[in-house]
Order: sequence, then C-alpha cells, then structure tokens
Amino acid sequence: MNNLTLMAVPHIPHVQPGDNLADLILHALAQSNLALADGDVLAIAQKIVSKAEGRLVRLAEVQPSDRAVEVAAATDKDPRVVELILQESEEISRMRPGVLIVRHRLGFTSANAGIDRSNVAQIGDDETVLLLPLDPDASAGKLREAIAAKLGVQVGVVITDSHGRPFRMGTVGVAIGVAGLPALWDRRGEPDLYGYQLQHTDIGVADEIAAAAGLLMGQAAEGMPVVLVRGLNYPIANGKATDLVRPKAMDLYR
Amino acid sequence: MNNLTLMAVPHIPHVQPGDNLADLILHALAQSNLALADGDVLAIAQKIVSKAEGRLVRLAEVQPSDRAVEVAAATDKDPRVVELILQESEEISRMRPGVLIVRHRLGFTSANAGIDRSNVAQIGDDETVLLLPLDPDASAGKLREAIAAKLGVQVGVVITDSHGRPFRMGTVGVAIGVAGLPALWDRRGEPDLYGYQLQHTDIGVADEIAAAAGLLMGQAAEGMPVVLVRGLNYPIANGKATDLVRPKAMDLYR
Repeated sequence: MNNLTLMAVPHIPHVQPGDNLADLILHALAQSNLALADGDVLAIAQKIVSKAEGRLVRLAEVQPSDRAVEVAAATDKDPRVVELILQESEEISRMRPGVLIVRHRLGFTSANAGIDRSNVAQIGDDETVLLLPLDPDASAGKLREAIAAKLGVQVGVVITDSHGRPFRMGTVGVAIGVAGLPALWDRRGEPDLYGYQLQHTDIGVADEIAAAAGLLMGQAAEGMPVVLVRGLNYPIANGKATDLVRPKAMDLYR
Repeated sequence: MNNLTLMAVPHIPHVQPGDNLADLILHALAQSNLALADGDVLAIAQKIVSKAEGRLVRLAEVQPSDRAVEVAAATDKDPRVVELILQESEEISRMRPGVLIVRHRLGFTSANAGIDRSNVAQIGDDETVLLLPLDPDASAGKLREAIAAKLGVQVGVVITDSHGRPFRMGTVGVAIGVAGLPALWDRRGEPDLYGYQLQHTDIGVADEIAAAAGLLMGQAAEGMPVVLVRGLNYPIANGKATDLVRPKAMDLYR
C-alpha cells in the first residue's frame, strides 16, 4: 500500500428525511464517472446519514426536564437542546459555562452528544437540531450492503463526525460508524524493523480514515459530505465504531 | 480542493545520527521521479527526525534518580527509561502498572514522553532508546527551508508521532512539528450551508494530515516514514505544532 487517494464526491444534493442515501451516493458517483471497486472506503459525514434517517427534532416540541433546566443554567445553553443532549447520553463527563461534554449512549465522549445547530435547515419557522443516527454501525452496514446488492462490490463504510479532544486544540474527524473494515487494527505482536515485538500498536484505523476525510469534507459552506478513499489495503473485517470506545475501566481520564 | 493524494516515499534508507534528512528525502523522491511542488506537504515520522538529530540514548549510561526508581516501581517499567521520561516531561499526568502518561516538556500529553524501544537499533550490545527531537517545530522549519533552498519550492512539513487517547481505543497519527502550513485552521465565523455562523470549528488540520499519513506509514516492519501529501489547499502560514497544545486552563481532563 503505497498510494492513497481521497476524492470528495461532487453532486451530493441536500439530503432530506427519507432519502435513500445509497441511491443518492451511487447517483453522484455515476455523475462523476467514478466506479466503486472492491476495497474502496466511503467516508460519509454523520449529518447526511442523520438527515436521511430523519433524526431532526423541532426545538419547539421539546419540553425540558428540571434537570435539563439546571444543566442549561450551568452551561449557558438552551434548555431544550440540553434536554436532547441528556436524552442522548449516558452521563455528563464535564460541564462548565459554554461546555457540556457527555458520554453518548453509543459510548463516544464528545461535546453536546454530537447535537448542534450548524448545517441543519429550518423546517418552516422552527429551529431544528440533528441527533446522531440511532445506530451508526448499523447505518454503515446497511449502506455497505445496499452497495454490494446494487453493484456487486465490497466497500468499507466509515460514518464520520468531528470531535474535540482533551490535551489538544482543534477538532478532528473520528469514526462513529464502521462497516466492512477493521475499526481498530491490531498490530500487536508483529516484529518491528529491528526485531522487537511491538506491544501497544492497536491502530485506530477508522479514526485515521475519518481524519483524512475531514481534510476534504471541511466544515463550512463548501462542505463535501462524501469522500471516496482508494488504496487502503485493509483486511475485510466486521469492525464496528464501538470497538473504538475505550472501556470505562481502561480510561484514566473519565 | 476535491482530491487528495498521499504517497509513501520509497527508498528512504535507515537513518543514522548526523544524516542530512533533507538530502536523504530529496534523493528518495528523485529515485521515484517525484517532483515536489508548491503546496505539497511532507509528513515525516518522528523517529527518523530524532535519529538524524542523534537523540539516541544508551540505557547503560542512564543513572536513575530516586524518583525514577519510585515511579518505575509503580508502573512496572525500566527505571532508566523512566528517568529519561521524567527528564523529558513537565509533569506526570496518570500512572498505573504498565502505564505512564506525562505532559512532555513540549506540551504534548502522551505515553512515555514519546520514548519507546521499538524501531530503535541497538548500538553495539547496548540497548538504546530514542527521545523526541529537541524542538520538532524547528526541525520541521529547517527541513522546509532546506527544501526551498535546494528546489525553490514551498512545501509544508508535518512531523508525526502516534498517540493513544482518552475515551478512544487505538493510536492515531498526530502532529508534533509543523512548518509552512496552519496547524490549527480557524474556521470560526464562516457561515455554514444554512447561514448560521459556525462557532467551534477550529480544525486540527495538522493532526488530520498526520492521521492520514499514519494510514500509509504503518508501525511495523514495512514502515514508510515519509509520506507526500498533495492536493491540500491550505494557506501558507507559520503554524506550529505547539498551537495544537491545549492550554492547561482550557483542559478539563488534566
């Protein structure tokens, strides 16, 4: 594996609830004369997956609990948004004015349970927010299967989000859904250049793919939500993004 | 920016202390008929930079302090290696048997201050370890300048390492030295697709480059320490990897 190519797929339309994402992506690829091949990976921004799955919530319809009102006051946030964050979360990890970091029900620790107002259209006059997909690993698997059924090719799928991080500034792309490739690549036990046995080299390969795709996706007006990654030489595997979730007992920074 | 190509540069020899890394990389590129162009980025594994800079230490020459002996006992590590880790660090972040996470004098928080025994040759019969470069941002800057002087092209340079992370399993490539491009890309204030002002979208672009390069570099026998990244459309900037260090006051997970 010496060359890796990432292509931002043009012609992805604004996604609407109920859209068939596989059809939409395959149509866009065809418009650009891009033929998928076995071993390609599609990195797909969470937002279009969530939109297709109808994970939009009108804030006007959200009734904040007492707890949400309390947390909203402590974090300077909209109590209705906080209510949704808490519903989507297992526990609060850290909070302070302007910051609400939670452990999402899927296990990921990130700001606001992945809920934000950016890149979400208003439905009528209502403000809406977008939740993460119910089960992004399953969403990735369905896309992979739909593509295999239509084209007969085996691709990997990585659903990506952007997370902030302890210790380091800036957000980076991370994998929140994976299908058809390893999420974590266990290189332990392989000898290195000088014959030592490598010990701690589980590589977060799906996160590295998501970060690479993040370079093309951007975050702003020119957002490109689908990136075709070609040239990874990965074993076909049933990796899941939840493989990337550090078990609580192994996390010294909870 | 729609396409991004990453090429692992073949023919990089085993690097020795005192080697001129710019010459060595340019020679390898020439052997593959790869001509550098303005705006290319070279991602370079820390290990070859450290080796060229002679950052090898013979363990037989290290005299562990009392504190190092104590920490070594608490972490089941070699007291001589712990001595070097402590010398390279500002403070211990977390420790437990098998784990020693420190804030490096450069500000990065990672396991073992970036010191490990893998991919380090033995000098004679002595075991040796490799420290991080003294000043990786400066190392990146020197490489960039040497290439500009020899070829007249302006490239970006990212010196990469692999870090584990809180919350998530697996290591990913991160930037520990940067020159000629932004390390952190401030997209705040740009309107999103629907006209909202984006708020928290500083992107850790140098880390995303390092992660992307990590997909090609591997960690084991087939390690490819230099990756040419082409197609990033970044502004020339004097970014530094230390821009990616989260100030202590802004880190809720210290």
